[in-house]
Amino acid sequence: MKRALTLVAATLACSAASFAIAIAQTDEPIEPVRPPRSINLGMVELGKKLYFDPRLSKSGWISCNSCHNLSMGGSDNIPTSIGDQWQQGPINAPTVLNSSLNLAQFWDGRAADLKAQAGGPIANPGEMAFSHTLALGVLESIPAYVREFKQVFGKDKIDIDQVTLAIAEFEKTLVTPNSRFDQWLLGRKDALSVDELAGYALFKDSGCVACHNGEAVGGNSFQKMGVVEPFKKDDPATGRFAVTGKDADRFNYKVPTLRNVELTYPYFHDGSANTLTEAVRVMGRIQLGKDFSAQETGQIVAFLKTLTGDQPNFALPILPPSSDATPRPQPFLPKK
Amino acid sequence: MKRALTLVAATLACSAASFAIAIAQTDEPIEPVRPPRSINLGMVELGKKLYFDPRLSKSGWISCNSCHNLSMGGSDNIPTSIGDQWQQGPINAPTVLNSSLNLAQFWDGRAADLKAQAGGPIANPGEMAFSHTLALGVLESIPAYVREFKQVFGKDKIDIDQVTLAIAEFEKTLVTPNSRFDQWLLGRKDALSVDELAGYALFKDSGCVACHNGEAVGGNSFQKMGVVEPFKKDDPATGRFAVTGKDADRFNYKVPTLRNVELTYPYFHDGSANTLTEAVRVMGRIQLGKDFSAQETGQIVAFLKTLTGDQPNFALPILPPSSDATPRPQPFLPKK
Repeated sequence: MKRALTLVAATLACSAASFAIAIAQTDEPIEPVRPPRSINLGMVELGKKLYFDPRLSKSGWISCNSCHNLSMGGSDNIPTSIGDQWQQGPINAPTVLNSSLNLAQFWDGRAADLKAQAGGPIANPGEMAFSHTLALGVLESIPAYVREFKQVFGKDKIDIDQVTLAIAEFEKTLVTPNSRFDQWLLGRKDALSVDELAGYALFKDSGCVACHNGEAVGGNSFQKMGVVEPFKKDDPATGRFAVTGKDADRFNYKVPTLRNVELTYPYFHDGSANTLTEAVRVMGRIQLGKDFSAQETGQIVAFLKTLTGDQPNFALPILPPSSDATPRPQPFLPKK
Repeated sequence: MKRALTLVAATLACSAASFAIAIAQTDEPIEPVRPPRSINLGMVELGKKLYFDPRLSKSGWISCNSCHNLSMGGSDNIPTSIGDQWQQGPINAPTVLNSSLNLAQFWDGRAADLKAQAGGPIANPGEMAFSHTLALGVLESIPAYVREFKQVFGKDKIDIDQVTLAIAEFEKTLVTPNSRFDQWLLGRKDALSVDELAGYALFKDSGCVACHNGEAVGGNSFQKMGVVEPFKKDDPATGRFAVTGKDADRFNYKVPTLRNVELTYPYFHDGSANTLTEAVRVMGRIQLGKDFSAQETGQIVAFLKTLTGDQPNFALPILPPSSDATPRPQPFLPKK
């Protein structure tokens, strides 16, 4: 009974603390990243294996982690990605870190959520170049996967919804709390330097925060790339127009998260900005009509680097081996 | 004083235990995999990052782990590897697991040790397609690497010997003790089934063990591929002849380790055998002049699957970000 009362007291104390945090957050346009809740751990472990498994690609060589590399900020750090047969992708791979906080997935928001996104690259001929049917054929031929899917989903047959649900559940764990900026938000007032605080003040006062706000410092709206002046005259990407068909949506993109932005270079949907300094200058000019001085740019960059949070921390997954019945990958085109 | 005596007694007891194991090992032609000793842990942590860092390649997309994938038995599970611009490699990527036990590295033994091997793929135009000079330029532009190299090696400048030494030190940790077969060798007599024991007896009695013996169950000699009958009439590989120039060394290859062979499909230097069943049958025929029955083959395969040991167990490394000064990768050829 005493133990039960102690637990109740502790729960009340926790609720009070959560409430205090919620109040503190309303003072600032950016909120601390919260660790994930309501997570199905069996599904996470299965999804983690699938995320690292290149057998979901035609070649047997490309996995989700190839372009959303969790050793490198959940991105590939190249302007546009490499697909099957070394095809050049059309757009910069967005980071998977904190992607569960986005209002939609892909730069143009064509997938409503992570589950809807996860099936895309597997079947995209320019990316993993496989098909959902072929991927399921591979998984069903691997006894350890069959058992794990059955344990997690309680069904005898693996289907693509289970695959994408498991990958999405793993991705929900890829949030990055505890950045220095979040420590500051949560009360550690010596967590930021004078320059970093000056950068944050500039970030708010100049208007960056109008789009880059909330828990992910972005990711929660679509905005035009090139408000004050055009980004590029020959930009082949059409942005959200591809989804809505509305002329007003040309050059509209999902505002990227600025969480871990120090790690997710190069920047913009075409990966054309190699450094944070360049990205801040271009954004100031084309979105806000401002020419940030070298000192201002440096301070904003210093602030942005405080948004790097705790990176994913888990053991490299060990994948179950193929069986004799597993269809073999086809990495090379038939020789002519 | 009492503590010191206790330590001496414990040390003597350990030596006696080692001696007992050594005696036990002489009864069988295969020895248990021993955990690594004399390991420099700082060097291992640095080498682990380098092993996973695709910035050691021209494209920024290929790391050591791309073809020696530690999620997949330290191999890529495709017949021959994919290199820069999706070039097709000439030979099957050998597993990195237990490679420290090999008498030399590469199928033809052209590298004396892991350190000599590690520099090869970085500068090979068909693999990572970079150069040692360019790789050093990247590393020296990344402040966190500069600090870590200085901490580990105590020098102000990074050189290629440090890079390959660190990768090799990490690779020395990639041994796989504790397989069921090793548990059996070490005294757990119920670790193997009747079929697995029958397979081991066949493995010894048929002569497989003449080449596949010792701690790695192979890796300690060069042998002709095709002793009794030729492997393939049109095999373009020349084996160890490429190193020695001796006609007698044509078709001679390093005997691969059979540790974790369940995970390292497809088999042979050209990756032409998709399954263990096929590999055992071909080896029996061309090396020993034996046609194993279906039952015998099944028993040998069952034995081979008991050689799967503890797989590498470590947190996915987080790589230090590039700086503004870091030369950017060149994943795509200039458009014509």
